[in-house]
Amino acid sequence: MRTQVGIVGAGPAGLLLSHLLHLRGIDSVVLELRDRDYCERRVRAGVLEQGTVDVLTAAGVGDRMRREGLPHHGIELRYGGAAHRIAFEELVPGRSITVYGQQEVVKDLIAARLAAGGKILFDVPDVKPHDLTGSPYLTFGGETLECDVIAGCDGFHGVTRAAVPPGELTTFERDYPFAWLGVLARVRPSAEELIYARTPRGFALHSMRSPEISRFYLQVPKDEREDAWPDERIWSELAARLETVPGFRLETGPVIEKSITPMRSFVTEPMRYGNLYLAGDAAHIVPPTGAKGLNLAVADVTVLTDALAQWYETGSSAGLDAYSATCLRRVWRAQHFSWWMTNLLHTFADEDPYGERLQTAYLDYVTSSTAAATTLAENYVGMVW
Amino acid sequence: MRTQVGIVGAGPAGLLLSHLLHLRGIDSVVLELRDRDYCERRVRAGVLEQGTVDVLTAAGVGDRMRREGLPHHGIELRYGGAAHRIAFEELVPGRSITVYGQQEVVKDLIAARLAAGGKILFDVPDVKPHDLTGSPYLTFGGETLECDVIAGCDGFHGVTRAAVPPGELTTFERDYPFAWLGVLARVRPSAEELIYARTPRGFALHSMRSPEISRFYLQVPKDEREDAWPDERIWSELAARLETVPGFRLETGPVIEKSITPMRSFVTEPMRYGNLYLAGDAAHIVPPTGAKGLNLAVADVTVLTDALAQWYETGSSAGLDAYSATCLRRVWRAQHFSWWMTNLLHTFADEDPYGERLQTAYLDYVTSSTAAATTLAENYVGMVW
Repeated sequence: MRTQVGIVGAGPAGLLLSHLLHLRGIDSVVLELRDRDYCERRVRAGVLEQGTVDVLTAAGVGDRMRREGLPHHGIELRYGGAAHRIAFEELVPGRSITVYGQQEVVKDLIAARLAAGGKILFDVPDVKPHDLTGSPYLTFGGETLECDVIAGCDGFHGVTRAAVPPGELTTFERDYPFAWLGVLARVRPSAEELIYARTPRGFALHSMRSPEISRFYLQVPKDEREDAWPDERIWSELAARLETVPGFRLETGPVIEKSITPMRSFVTEPMRYGNLYLAGDAAHIVPPTGAKGLNLAVADVTVLTDALAQWYETGSSAGLDAYSATCLRRVWRAQHFSWWMTNLLHTFADEDPYGERLQTAYLDYVTSSTAAATTLAENYVGMVW
Repeated sequence: MRTQVGIVGAGPAGLLLSHLLHLRGIDSVVLELRDRDYCERRVRAGVLEQGTVDVLTAAGVGDRMRREGLPHHGIELRYGGAAHRIAFEELVPGRSITVYGQQEVVKDLIAARLAAGGKILFDVPDVKPHDLTGSPYLTFGGETLECDVIAGCDGFHGVTRAAVPPGELTTFERDYPFAWLGVLARVRPSAEELIYARTPRGFALHSMRSPEISRFYLQVPKDEREDAWPDERIWSELAARLETVPGFRLETGPVIEKSITPMRSFVTEPMRYGNLYLAGDAAHIVPPTGAKGLNLAVADVTVLTDALAQWYETGSSAGLDAYSATCLRRVWRAQHFSWWMTNLLHTFADEDPYGERLQTAYLDYVTSSTAAATTLAENYVGMVW
């Protein structure tokens, strides 16, 4: 089998790349370890930046997103018994976010690829990249896929980055002393916008997926197990962390899904090795606080599509050569923002009293200074580069 | 001896308080451990916020400051081989800073107090505050000063805060794993504005006191001794940290003074105990990076003057009761800003590679986003409350 771009991973990065390449007349094949159903049900992020919405819309895969997605023009920071709104419409006029689950994006992209005759091979075991600095190819289950370049869109634990010889990539990492318990519940959201709550009990996030489905996150200890959180405990802890301002009552209902999300910061430099290009979580991970993971993946593959199109159309490798540096500017901005939001809102067990006061002083500043609020808003809706 | 306000400490806080009270018809006596010459020569901060300049001017002690002080409309952040100006005139129009040494402020205030017949007792040993919750008085060298209230303006190591019974005050502290070597040199400044330089060798600050006197700071190890820094080493290290952009050459000349400044964050809450009111460094310390120490002291005694005037004029203790909370809002903003600037610009020996990249990403953001640059600028010139 032969294609122009061999794509490993059918998450948002791989699928969108395949779709964008198709629109530029470039052939690709997507190899995915899991089955289609798994990919379409995997609950992940749900906040799309303005730029991500624009990319999906321009690529013709935004119809359902525009119908079912929830445009938001602000978020709330809740702490010290008070609610403070970060008003995007005032701070970054004309820019907003759209709440739309990552798995919905995946469904839309799979449908678009298959409708266009695109090749996505699900349930493909033992994918292995070869000859990355020469004529690259991928092997899987006894078959071979020859290609001009390989796109590693297979996430943090994927095979592509692992195939790069030791010493060729530099990695930058930070762990956090806590995790998030993510909860999906069949209940209408208790508020119209996202609520980021900092409490002495830990951080909590009130979010939603639709007018009928709420999404919550609770800061929990690093090695927490899901079974430590029966539904009653989830609801009582969410109430304790969110019902901290007058008049707010948490709506409760059946829990559909719960899972532990580790908190990790990670960057690989460069994001290229020979003819292998890493994109999305394969190249970088952010803690989910700033909702940047999916948006970075979309930005990466947009840059990669332009670079590959330039190369195929003109023979110039300028875009490909600049791919890593171009992406890393945005990646490090998002790394910093995600680290910043995480530090601003979480409880740190080893924090001294000075540090706690500092955190409050910072929140007081962010919620009272237009300039400081704008730094949050402009990063949250997505920096324009 | 009897007065209305017994002031301990003839630094900027105590002297300005005495002067401001005098302007409101309130009598005070200042007790100072050191001699006048020592107070007038003690080299300290040199950056006055707009609000500090306004207070000194309104109090009639700003004539020489306006003549000799250097108005600055920006500072430079230097890192990664490039210079980035934070332009106050664009980011916070109409607000600026004035470079004028703290010891010059002290000279002006001493002169004003003595000209008005104010009482400053220098060289006073063994000052002790008594009966803080009753009828307070101060003893010193066999004498007694009775007063209505005591103002503790005697710095971090002073006797007033130490006289408060254990458990009455809560303290918040942070140490930093480095110190500053401060250098005063008889040489014209090498640039017109302050330069905050972050380098892999550590932080350096280029500042000035006059067109003939330069002021420098070098990040050095925490327990560094001054004699480890002969003049040649100072100049070669300053050159290594500052001559990092094309066209910049460090002017050198005779070193007049050098001293080690410890880096510490410290806050006492509340800033009052009974009839003792703490102001300036007696109540809070910031690392000097943000140039906030003197400015906070001026803000404290301005609030305290208004509160005391209200009390003497109307009998209402509302201002005095609110003194601590009013000051602490500004104090914590300055604490956070000073911590933030310190973290942004210093080298941390225990920093991991991720943290170094994060610091660069933050600097890149502050120097490219108008909102982020404004957060630096508005804090640097002084927040308006």
